[in-house]
Amino acid sequence: MTQDTLTLPAPALRRFIYDAFVVVGLAAADAETAADVLATADEFGVTTHGVKLLPGYLRRLQGGGAKLHGRPHVIREGPAWALVDGDSALGVLIGVFGMQAAIAKARSAGIAFVGVRNSGHFAAAGYYSLMAAKTGLIGISVANDTPSVIAPGARKAVVGTNPFSYAIPASRHPPILLDMALSTVAGGKVYQARVLGQPIPDNWIVGLDGLPTTQAELYPEQAALTPAGGYKGFGLALLVETLAGLLTGAAVTFGVASWMAVGADQPTRHGAAFIAIDPAVFGPRYEFLERVDALIDEIHAAPTVAGVERILVPGDREFEHQQRAQREPLVLFADVAQNVRLAAEMAGLQIGDYL
Amino acid sequence: MTQDTLTLPAPALRRFIYDAFVVVGLAAADAETAADVLATADEFGVTTHGVKLLPGYLRRLQGGGAKLHGRPHVIREGPAWALVDGDSALGVLIGVFGMQAAIAKARSAGIAFVGVRNSGHFAAAGYYSLMAAKTGLIGISVANDTPSVIAPGARKAVVGTNPFSYAIPASRHPPILLDMALSTVAGGKVYQARVLGQPIPDNWIVGLDGLPTTQAELYPEQAALTPAGGYKGFGLALLVETLAGLLTGAAVTFGVASWMAVGADQPTRHGAAFIAIDPAVFGPRYEFLERVDALIDEIHAAPTVAGVERILVPGDREFEHQQRAQREPLVLFADVAQNVRLAAEMAGLQIGDYL
Repeated sequence: MTQDTLTLPAPALRRFIYDAFVVVGLAAADAETAADVLATADEFGVTTHGVKLLPGYLRRLQGGGAKLHGRPHVIREGPAWALVDGDSALGVLIGVFGMQAAIAKARSAGIAFVGVRNSGHFAAAGYYSLMAAKTGLIGISVANDTPSVIAPGARKAVVGTNPFSYAIPASRHPPILLDMALSTVAGGKVYQARVLGQPIPDNWIVGLDGLPTTQAELYPEQAALTPAGGYKGFGLALLVETLAGLLTGAAVTFGVASWMAVGADQPTRHGAAFIAIDPAVFGPRYEFLERVDALIDEIHAAPTVAGVERILVPGDREFEHQQRAQREPLVLFADVAQNVRLAAEMAGLQIGDYL
Repeated sequence: MTQDTLTLPAPALRRFIYDAFVVVGLAAADAETAADVLATADEFGVTTHGVKLLPGYLRRLQGGGAKLHGRPHVIREGPAWALVDGDSALGVLIGVFGMQAAIAKARSAGIAFVGVRNSGHFAAAGYYSLMAAKTGLIGISVANDTPSVIAPGARKAVVGTNPFSYAIPASRHPPILLDMALSTVAGGKVYQARVLGQPIPDNWIVGLDGLPTTQAELYPEQAALTPAGGYKGFGLALLVETLAGLLTGAAVTFGVASWMAVGADQPTRHGAAFIAIDPAVFGPRYEFLERVDALIDEIHAAPTVAGVERILVPGDREFEHQQRAQREPLVLFADVAQNVRLAAEMAGLQIGDYL
């Protein structure tokens, strides 16, 4: 376990993740899907939610907490909604199943809501929203998680970071893609600072007294995340908790197990929700896409403060990073490289074979 | 026009608003609805979105920009969605029409999305979400507005405050009710500080150089609002712009007229969107309501920082204020009282008749 970085081409990283999933026993098609979810995050530069998660996912697949042959399935449904039991399969596979169901229903019903119980940690929420945008639909995906975020005025975490993401298809431009924790920053960023020994701003976490601290090493045992925008982020986290948890019959708040802390043989019982909307029911699809393009152009053209080159829409940075990953190898920093080595060890793979 | 406060019972305020709307020519049923929307905001203590808006609404009804006899109607629809033309009626009436349509469709389809074009300023978005919660459904309502909020790194407003609200029904407790601008604070709060001559925190607005300022008097001509939580609030504002504007064919960004600045004979062409979800399709309604109650109890019981009595869920403050308004008269502060006097003058009513 060294602190070195690791440099390898994106396709090689993808192959490595696929091979690791196959070695622990995931079916080839599922390994392909799971590798796409994680590798896409690294290609996007979202390094907290890519291959860094692989050792944890392998551990849970080996332990049985995430079932190798879990089968997400619809329990109840109508033309515009479905309730899915994730069967504690690997979370990313449940996410893909859930959004596929939402997309299929929205194609005929105009809008669809799919709620999921017995889900698991599903990596970057934005992946599923983007699935919808790639087929011309607006996608929204959310999930609850074990509490790590305070309410304003609280000394302890009361709600999860509860990721919220959406994707809006465009024509000339890539989709608008927002994927965010409803905390000021995702817990992964605090872990990252902790591992890399970096200081953090004083508005990311609070200590057990509820007061701000810059000591990343206190998190998560003796500190909790602050909500994004104060009561606004907290309020949105409650909406996500409701859509993903209360509505679906999944576990909520402390009933959701921490996927990293819980025994590898235990399910986490996360909830998730997926919404898809087909713009084509409201009018010609090309008109909608042109309007999205025009909005993006307008924002790109906004006057900037000194030192800022261009105003970005959500996703610009990620798609630019992905394009670069097609030309240049990915550079995985120490915190990620360390987990790649760990995953290789767990799966009995040689990193050298992929460089 | 004095700086005095005004004290009057909530039912009297409601009657005053109703009478004023009737005087300018609104049908009795519509006046009743519009008075309920505004009076409820004052009862909730949301003084920026209550009777304070009345003179502006009267002016637009008298000028014809908001049509006295406008008829919101469905242009296209499916079992789970509808596209509504608001016909530039008074915005609050369009809002009620839109959410009623969403509720009716969600009752059979499980979820419904209603988009609206040719809408107007619709006061507090939370009112419409609460309509859904009062019938046991989850309600979400959003609207776009003329730009007043910067993107991170921008020197000028690029997007509206784009209100986002939701309401979640409970059983023992009142609904969870969040109604927020996606700016750090609503523009109305800056106007309020401007009128009352109060200083504002340095994170509410930026000047023409894009740098923070505490001078409320610069807004809106020479300053713009900051987005809530930085890029997160900005990103959500783009989602609202898409649902309310791009999807519906309403005006977007600078195409939406400022309801206060535009000529009283001109429509504003706002867009809005309403979503309703019926929890009863996923399982027994009482089980869902019990889960909501339990979540609220859990949050109320969270340990607080020194000086904070109890952790609130969104809406707690508003419902408590409303209960108090049943026992004690409302005290309208100078900025609101001034507009009540102005509305009385416009409608030829005597405030004294209502005290």
